[in-house]
Parts: sequence; structure tokens; C-alpha cells
Amino acid sequence: MASTYIFGHKSPDTDAINSAIIMAEFERLNGNDSAKAYRLGELNPETQYALDYFKAEAPELLSDDLTDKDVILVDHNEFQQSADSIESANILHVVDHHRIANFHTAAPLYYRAEPLGCTATILYKMFKEQGFEIKPQIAGLMLSAIISDSLLFKSPTCTEQDKAAAQALENLAGVNAQEYGLEMLKAGASTVDKSPVEIINADAKTFEMGDYSVRIGQVNTVDVNEILARQAELEQAITETLSGAEYDIFVLVATDILNSDSTILVLGKDKDKIAKAFDVELDNNTAFLPGVVSRKKQIVPPITAALS
Amino acid sequence: MASTYIFGHKSPDTDAINSAIIMAEFERLNGNDSAKAYRLGELNPETQYALDYFKAEAPELLSDDLTDKDVILVDHNEFQQSADSIESANILHVVDHHRIANFHTAAPLYYRAEPLGCTATILYKMFKEQGFEIKPQIAGLMLSAIISDSLLFKSPTCTEQDKAAAQALENLAGVNAQEYGLEMLKAGASTVDKSPVEIINADAKTFEMGDYSVRIGQVNTVDVNEILARQAELEQAITETLSGAEYDIFVLVATDILNSDSTILVLGKDKDKIAKAFDVELDNNTAFLPGVVSRKKQIVPPITAALS
Repeated sequence: MASTYIFGHKSPDTDAINSAIIMAEFERLNGNDSAKAYRLGELNPETQYALDYFKAEAPELLSDDLTDKDVILVDHNEFQQSADSIESANILHVVDHHRIANFHTAAPLYYRAEPLGCTATILYKMFKEQGFEIKPQIAGLMLSAIISDSLLFKSPTCTEQDKAAAQALENLAGVNAQEYGLEMLKAGASTVDKSPVEIINADAKTFEMGDYSVRIGQVNTVDVNEILARQAELEQAITETLSGAEYDIFVLVATDILNSDSTILVLGKDKDKIAKAFDVELDNNTAFLPGVVSRKKQIVPPITAALS
Repeated sequence: MASTYIFGHKSPDTDAINSAIIMAEFERLNGNDSAKAYRLGELNPETQYALDYFKAEAPELLSDDLTDKDVILVDHNEFQQSADSIESANILHVVDHHRIANFHTAAPLYYRAEPLGCTATILYKMFKEQGFEIKPQIAGLMLSAIISDSLLFKSPTCTEQDKAAAQALENLAGVNAQEYGLEMLKAGASTVDKSPVEIINADAKTFEMGDYSVRIGQVNTVDVNEILARQAELEQAITETLSGAEYDIFVLVATDILNSDSTILVLGKDKDKIAKAFDVELDNNTAFLPGVVSRKKQIVPPITAALS
């Protein structure tokens, strides 16, 4: 039975899963043998590829009530993104690279946040500061998380520290970051087995912007035609989502991970305002956005400005 | 004109003031020449003694509006303990040893919290990690903050890391920690020159606990009778504070720094619940709490539990 629960956010991505495993190793090296990694949702195919490649076991799905349990959060802090019983847990430590919001504790704790591209980069620094050995498997998981969050170092969220960590980890893990990274991203980028509803919801977040409630989904792909060929059924799924009246506008961002561009598919009220945000016009509800890959840095800010 | 404002909490104690000065030095060593320490209130005599002893300049009183300004918080995070315009500032970094509550940011940031006895101990570690030289003056300010927060290493908040840092800093600052520390604490422990309003506000913090807003002031003394002899005028000052309707309960903690005990004076709504938190009864609004010296570890948690 674990006495310290370590986990990343709901709808886990590779950084959320791998950072939990890495942090459990950090705790063990610090003498905390009862630390154990958990996950708050299903693994995506990209993460599964990384775990298989580096022969790492997937964390167990968290089902325990955390009341009065010792927990460590990685890659998130906002309670609505965390375990349902987080408010009654004893949070010992947080390692994260996001803003801090909807988070509070009753007691002093360890909190390590840095505005870097990836939580695993912070964990890499923590291992180095302590002089801990980074085993090839742990190095591979760190590298995979950095590649995932930075889309192979192309996202504007990627910092020099993320790149420097990745360079050191490449040697420790014994892989070529470009070759391995592309295979890993491709493993997560196939949409052929997914239903339209799965595609539009897989990585969707809701934003309140001016008087609009905007749902923005993002899907990685190595061939944007895989998405565009299914435009009719995707539009039908989006229209059904919009009819629920919860959202005013839906923006599906199909990101080409090979060329670092995106194509958006926009439906809903005043959809032309979305196109205007990027100085383009919608053609059959779609528009091409060269050089755009980051929802956080390149999609949300211009749409927020256009709708506010 | 400073472009990065660095400050500790309102009603500043020695850790709040010294950590602001120390953090400004850390920023300068990191290449941020525009970093400047500020204070959110008057210096107490203990802090004044430490600054005079180590020939350090007192930080300027903060009067600027912080809207869209870059700020670094030390020794606190809760907005009600911070500058009035903190919610519209751009918080770059926090270094603290308290719980996290009523704190949020719009963007990712640096946050370094550790459950140690003193913020200056965390700053000492940050200097060591970066390989920065700790000048005798900075070492003296670090040591003074640790002695202040730990009441000469006697508080249960004092960790092995605080003691180890103090030992190293003793040599760097060129003082005997016990001798210097006792003189510094005594300088801050005299209440004879203070008005009742000064005594109750000198080191007071506000806490939201259950449905109550609780104001907890702490005053160090070498003779608790100095405080108790003035109970009538202290109660009048507290009653006036409570009539402002901002706080429901006021707890004044008079801590005997020689014997490591405290006496509390409690006024306000449901004041008997405060006594119950410590398994004592109020006698003429006061109660003796043997072995209690730490507000954070020995006062706030039982009151929080009793009121929640």
C-alpha cells in the first residue's frame, strides 16, 4: 500500500504520466520508499509508445479516496484538473510549469514552479541539483515529455533550458531525439482509428472570451488531409456539440507536426471573427495558419483579443 | 526607478525585511540590475537592530501602484498579507515557507516554497545552488532572519536545515549566533515604549478560518508581566479593532523568549472556542500555553481545527 500518491492532471498527456513516474523515482532516491506513481485517466497512444520504448510500467489508475493521504502533484495544481478528493488530501509537494490558480493548502509544503516548457525539465534540474543518477529509462521518460510538450522543440513554449535538458538526456537515454521524437509524435498523431466525437474532444478546453464561450480542440497529425477528408462528419459532431448551447463557437485546430503549421475548422456564432483574429478568411469553414502550433501561446491570445 | 519590486508581508518582521534585501542581491547576481527591495510597513526594533548591526540600508516604504509591474514576493503569498494592488501586478517569483492560500496568477511563474523555519534559509540554499558568494552583510541578514523566526533555534518550526544554515552563516557573518541573537531578540522584545495599538498590530496576521476572520498578533517579551500589566488598555485597542467588523476574533500571543512559553489574550465572537482549541479555559480573557512559541505550528493549526 502506497503512502505517498504521485500523479499528474486528468486527461493525462505524456508530461503528466512521465513526470509522475520520474517524481516517484526522485522520492525513492530521497529515501521515500512508499512513493508511487498513479494516473487520473487513460494513456494516449503517444504516451503508450514512450512507455513501451523505454520499458516503463504504466502508473496504476487512481481509485482511492485521498482524504488525509500524502500526495505529490506534478504538471498541474488547479484542483478542478486534479483528483476529485484532492481538497481533503495532505499535499506535500508540487512540481509544475503552469500558472497557479484554484489551489490552496492548510500547511506549508514544497512547491517548485518554473515557467519552462515542461515539468520534466524541472525534474531534470532537481535530479542534477541533488546529484542523483538519471538512469537511461528515466532519461528517456524525461526526454519524451519534453518532446511531447514542445512538439519536438518547435513550440514557442519551449525554452533554452528545455532544449539544454533534452540535449543532455538524449545521451543518457541513448536515442536520437529527432528520430525517436518523430516516431513518438507520429504514434500519437494517427486519427484513422478515432471517431469524429473522439477527435473533437480528445484535447479540448473551454475558454470564456468576452461574451463568448469558445471550445478549442487540438489534434496532432502528420497528414492534415486525414482530418480534412472527414470534414463532413467532423462538422456534424461539432454542430451537435454546439446545439447543446453550452458553447458559442467551436475551433478545431489540426496541427501538422512535421511542418509546424495548423489548419483550423470553425463553426458557430460569428465564426468570421475567429478568422479575422488571424488575418485570414474562412474558406469552406477552414483556414490555414502557417507557423502556428501552440494553443496556449498562438491560438488563445489572438482569439481572446478578437472577441473581447 | 525600479522595474522589479521585491517585498515581504505587511507588518514586516525580520525575515520579511531581510529576505527582500537578500532576494534583491540574488536578482542582481543573476543579472537583474533593476531589482529593488521594498517594505510594506514600519521596521520593528529587532529588525532595526539587525540592519544597524550589519550596516544595511532599510528598504524603501512601498507607495507605488503595482498595476502591470513586475514583482517578487518573499516570506508570504496570501494576497491579504501583501501589497494592496497585488492582484493587478505581474508576479514573477515567490520564495516562501508558508502554506499557500488566496494566491493565484494569470501566467506561469517561479515559485519556491519549502516547509522550513525561515525564508532566508531557502534563500541561503538558492545562493549555494547557484554558487553565488554570500557577503558578510548578506550572511548577517540571513542569520538574523533565522534567529528571529526560530527564537534562537527554540521554535518547533526550526528544522535541521535552518540550524545547518545558521552554523555556516555564523562564520560568514563573523558573529557568535547565541550572543548576537539574544541581543537582537532583546532589542525587539521591549514593549514599554509601545502604544497598545502598536503592540497588537506589530506582528499581526489575518486568517480566514471556517466562517471566522481571525486576527492573530504576536509580541515577543522577556517579561510577560510587561504585557499583562497593560491588559485593560490592550483590550480597549483590540475592542476598537474588532468594532471595525473586519475581524471576528482577535488573539494576542505574548511570547516569553527566555522560557519559550506564551500567554494569549482573546477577545471577540465565540472566544471560548479559541481556549478550547488548546484544552484550556480563559481566565479574565487570558490563558497560559506552556511550550508554545510558534504561531504557524502551534497556534494557527489548533485554532483552524477548532473553528472549521
